[in-house]
Amino acid sequence: MTNKLLTVGVDLGGTKIAFGALDQEGTLYHQEIIKTRVSDGPLAIVADVIAAVNRIKEKEPSCQFLGVGIGMAGQIEKQTGAVFFSTNLGWQNFPLQEMVAKEMQLPVYVLNDVRAAAFGEWVVGAGKGSKDILCVFVGTGIGGGVVSDSMLLEGDTNAAAEIGHFTIDLQGPKCTCGNTGCFEAFAGGWAIAKRAKELIRQNMSDGQDILKLVDGKVDALTTKHVFEAYRCGAALAKQVVEELTLALIAGTSGLVNIFNPERLILGGSICVGNSELIEAVHQGVLKKSLKISTRNLKIMAASLGNSAGVIGAAMYAKKKIEEGNKR
Amino acid sequence: MTNKLLTVGVDLGGTKIAFGALDQEGTLYHQEIIKTRVSDGPLAIVADVIAAVNRIKEKEPSCQFLGVGIGMAGQIEKQTGAVFFSTNLGWQNFPLQEMVAKEMQLPVYVLNDVRAAAFGEWVVGAGKGSKDILCVFVGTGIGGGVVSDSMLLEGDTNAAAEIGHFTIDLQGPKCTCGNTGCFEAFAGGWAIAKRAKELIRQNMSDGQDILKLVDGKVDALTTKHVFEAYRCGAALAKQVVEELTLALIAGTSGLVNIFNPERLILGGSICVGNSELIEAVHQGVLKKSLKISTRNLKIMAASLGNSAGVIGAAMYAKKKIEEGNKR
Repeated sequence: MTNKLLTVGVDLGGTKIAFGALDQEGTLYHQEIIKTRVSDGPLAIVADVIAAVNRIKEKEPSCQFLGVGIGMAGQIEKQTGAVFFSTNLGWQNFPLQEMVAKEMQLPVYVLNDVRAAAFGEWVVGAGKGSKDILCVFVGTGIGGGVVSDSMLLEGDTNAAAEIGHFTIDLQGPKCTCGNTGCFEAFAGGWAIAKRAKELIRQNMSDGQDILKLVDGKVDALTTKHVFEAYRCGAALAKQVVEELTLALIAGTSGLVNIFNPERLILGGSICVGNSELIEAVHQGVLKKSLKISTRNLKIMAASLGNSAGVIGAAMYAKKKIEEGNKR
Repeated sequence: MTNKLLTVGVDLGGTKIAFGALDQEGTLYHQEIIKTRVSDGPLAIVADVIAAVNRIKEKEPSCQFLGVGIGMAGQIEKQTGAVFFSTNLGWQNFPLQEMVAKEMQLPVYVLNDVRAAAFGEWVVGAGKGSKDILCVFVGTGIGGGVVSDSMLLEGDTNAAAEIGHFTIDLQGPKCTCGNTGCFEAFAGGWAIAKRAKELIRQNMSDGQDILKLVDGKVDALTTKHVFEAYRCGAALAKQVVEELTLALIAGTSGLVNIFNPERLILGGSICVGNSELIEAVHQGVLKKSLKISTRNLKIMAASLGNSAGVIGAAMYAKKKIEEGNKR
């Protein structure tokens, strides 16, 4: 590979950091994943990021590197790319963009990791070619990203599309955000596991089929076990998945009315590979959303999988650099 | 008034049509309101609109008229300004923009009336100067409009910001849209009246204070009576208003997380002049929304009142005409 223009993408999460170099055609090279040394603090992580980016650069000495995009699990300042707050990493007011840029002598752009993934899906993934998309990522929590008339929504404090946190049930359970009855408190991974544990504790005999998977230890139960038990036909798991499906339909059909996207793109560990769930949401949204809101609506699975964050961060940096060059 | 550049605004609703001429400074002249002759069909209404616009033109023979903006209660096609569907007027696929433009020999732009009002609030009302606003209009139904990074959200089929129709309660009552538990089914004017009637029928003696206002006729009860009884201290009305307030807080705090506006602007007949309700929503949203979403958030009453639709429609047409001239 010679004379290519490459942009490095970084997906900085609480447990691992993923890297890759993206060319102008959207092909990803030199992917690497390292552990996040959370306990060593932000400076150690900055050093790890720089070292990994340099490794990629050394592999392509004849290529030009445009810059670096970093998708980061946290709240990012729009103007400076500083990390205002990150629960997963325990950072507060850390000038990530500035520090990496200074060391790398390259333009660096930091954005929220979920928004990076949505941007990636829009530019080269399931949203490619559409002007109006809504990405709903259902993993441990629920996050999203919205493109409206070809503009990625950022909001006033760079926090737009926090779609996990709107009330879908006035009597609903407490959410991690402090509010009650949030979409995420019904359909996020943590909520699914919590609900299964709750039902098992209410009726231990009903829970036997699931409990076998965790040697009888209720506390060890995760969302993965719930779905495993569901596939084996466990009645309690079936109840949990049915409740999840209803909540997902309620949440997404409201969001479709709110944003009126042309494509609703479902991603995240709960949705990926779960075509049955995606199909149920599809049918539910068509039934429950306003007719005008679903006139052209396509509902589909995200297509970039775990690479969405790396690809999106690189694409975002590339776009920002190109916009800057135009000025 | 000589040599001014004027744009005519029209607010076309199911019961009345309001008109006015807006100058470059945002001052409104020659306001007029006529009845909507719904039963005479769309052609009669087009004739009424044209006649009213001509009356305004005749009053200002020395002014130049840039064009006409029409805010219309219905679903409007983005490219053509045709009325795809209007429940209030019973229209379907009616080429309103084309017909008025042909007759008037002026550029005409048609948009949804609620979005016109939001646009007006943004350009010259409570949202003036902000790049990110969310307008929530609580009247008989709940409608809204969103400006994100200085762009009015339209969505794929021109239906963005249908904020009355997202589920806030999984067990909630049936909504007019066919779904259940919608924001509007708890906090819209029709739902408030319905809830009061329901409670009265459950317990007629509790309802005596409200029933006095309608000569004992439950069916005659409107939202207005509920608020009147509330101000007089009627316990049943107090319960209804408290439920409404909780629903309004739940709905708006979610929307603040979803859109991350700098200003949340509350309008519509239920909110206008109801500073107690607006203050309750204010406190509730600050408590329930994410901290990042409320960092700069201001919550305020809409400032254009009933003129928002006329002003917004005129402003929208003016903007479209100016954009067209630039090309």
